[in-house]
Amino acid sequence: MEEVENKQVILKHYVKGFPKESDMGTRTTKTKLNLEGSSSGQVLVKNLYLSCDPYMRNRMSKTEGSYIDSFTPDSPIGGYGVGKVLDSTHPDFQKGDLIWGFTGWEEYSIVSPAQFSHFKIEHTDVPLSYYTGILGMPGMTAYAGFFKVCSPKKGEKVFISAASGAVGQLVGQFAKSFGCYVVGSAGSKEKVDLLKSKLGFDDAFNYKEEQDLVAALKRYFPEGIDIYFENVGGKMLDAVLLNMNNHGRIAACGMISQYNREEPEGAQNLFCVVTKRIRMEGFLVFDYYDQYPEFLEMILPLIREGKITYIEDIVEGLENAPSALIGLFLGRNVGKQVVAITSV
Amino acid sequence: MEEVENKQVILKHYVKGFPKESDMGTRTTKTKLNLEGSSSGQVLVKNLYLSCDPYMRNRMSKTEGSYIDSFTPDSPIGGYGVGKVLDSTHPDFQKGDLIWGFTGWEEYSIVSPAQFSHFKIEHTDVPLSYYTGILGMPGMTAYAGFFKVCSPKKGEKVFISAASGAVGQLVGQFAKSFGCYVVGSAGSKEKVDLLKSKLGFDDAFNYKEEQDLVAALKRYFPEGIDIYFENVGGKMLDAVLLNMNNHGRIAACGMISQYNREEPEGAQNLFCVVTKRIRMEGFLVFDYYDQYPEFLEMILPLIREGKITYIEDIVEGLENAPSALIGLFLGRNVGKQVVAITSV
Repeated sequence: MEEVENKQVILKHYVKGFPKESDMGTRTTKTKLNLEGSSSGQVLVKNLYLSCDPYMRNRMSKTEGSYIDSFTPDSPIGGYGVGKVLDSTHPDFQKGDLIWGFTGWEEYSIVSPAQFSHFKIEHTDVPLSYYTGILGMPGMTAYAGFFKVCSPKKGEKVFISAASGAVGQLVGQFAKSFGCYVVGSAGSKEKVDLLKSKLGFDDAFNYKEEQDLVAALKRYFPEGIDIYFENVGGKMLDAVLLNMNNHGRIAACGMISQYNREEPEGAQNLFCVVTKRIRMEGFLVFDYYDQYPEFLEMILPLIREGKITYIEDIVEGLENAPSALIGLFLGRNVGKQVVAITSV
Repeated sequence: MEEVENKQVILKHYVKGFPKESDMGTRTTKTKLNLEGSSSGQVLVKNLYLSCDPYMRNRMSKTEGSYIDSFTPDSPIGGYGVGKVLDSTHPDFQKGDLIWGFTGWEEYSIVSPAQFSHFKIEHTDVPLSYYTGILGMPGMTAYAGFFKVCSPKKGEKVFISAASGAVGQLVGQFAKSFGCYVVGSAGSKEKVDLLKSKLGFDDAFNYKEEQDLVAALKRYFPEGIDIYFENVGGKMLDAVLLNMNNHGRIAACGMISQYNREEPEGAQNLFCVVTKRIRMEGFLVFDYYDQYPEFLEMILPLIREGKITYIEDIVEGLENAPSALIGLFLGRNVGKQVVAITSV
């Protein structure tokens, strides 16, 4: 049986505080290019695109009882990706299929699809990398978070943090097309310009340049915030609480500002939740994947007709994946961070 | 025009930190016993019972843009009460009527009823003081908070903080009769005993005797908490978040542990809201008073048939009101804190 080389990116050890590239490493193993002798229900995939997502930070630490397992030290990092099926003993996937779902940070992975863990890609007239983003987990997250959790009404004032990220840029465009007033925050002038010039936000600001986030939000929302799409947590959440309107809604999608801290910052202004009758609701995309077909039906025409903008930040080469992931936590990426695995 | 003496409890000045009895004072003014010459829509009330409620702490400080105004220094404290109408130029209230609603901490008050600010008491076969509690604002709060905000399901595990208070003791009984498992926390052995022996809670504990609230909750809820009725905030909320089940609900009714702090404690564990898909929703009773008739229809038979227990802590005399209010913040009261104004 012929074997080929399989380059992998592994987690060396569990991480505390801010992760470094050196917490990850590369190695090369050997793998067979078929599933002979393996148990049924598996799929051998050649990985094409890997997705860098904020939630992955939590998997780099030892956690217990979380909604998702920690990575295993000395094993490949795991995450969403797009791949091509080389062999399959799973009835839903055939050799030659393109799929997206959970995979390993390596050239070839054997995956065991469960319900909603892997999806067959039926539409290939759009860039394949989109299935790590607008057509994959982040897209579905934006869709469910905005339309199902925020209970938006036309004319409402929407604030989005980490607004140029994979999820934020889509939430903003969904909210605009729904008839809301939309402001986003991001961490650089370049991102703020993108939000205003390309992504159609009504306004945007660089949170790093604001001494007083409460005052900044007051400036952008003189009539208060009705909906906050929460991606960052920490001081921003506290400032938002003071600027929320009565009966406002907070869709808690993530809190990236807290992931690299050993002790989370405390939210001081939670009493606003009582006095303003705020509904703050956390959600995970996993609970909404049954609505993926309905989402695709909405989003594919928008992409094809150029009615939605989607910004990706693609780096080439598996060996550059660790730096891309660290860059995500540093806010270095502009748009959705993707790693393209170049074929040999 | 004959005038009578009108003893009043006033707020001397705005309060920072923990309030003291000496922040309040008494004085005696004169008042006419009719509304001659006053503008229409007013009601002259002889106050019979005054209500001490946690939310009043916030009115003792200078706040801006809150859902309820600060008290005015050198003027009577305001709050809910039960009174008898001595004169009225308001079409809905007649001389001789008993009413409950906002009034002053004084013997005689002139009030200006607005929608849902004052209610005519139609049922007098139950103790009149109950209209400051089980049949008034706290009762309606418990009803709306549990049935409308918590979205309870039979068999769910419910935790209530400040559980022997005016609202908590009712929420616990509503939840029990609905078929939930109910545990409460309180701040003394006497209160804990009451919860278990008289109020029908499945279990209860004294939070002051627990070194580790996370572990305590784990002990009482080995299968996790589905619903948290939040009255206290602070460290308890943080401990609850770690013990909540997926898709749990937190009805945020109040955060009494924070009201006397100059800086609120931060909630550290809010990321649980995301990972456990928790819905945390604040509410104010004012939004639910249109359902007061439906509430009365449910609760009055339970009281008359002895199917619900209601514990009051009544002190006699307006001059004892400041100490009763401070006692509420110290947790000195056992059950709903009421002040009875003894007639001369």
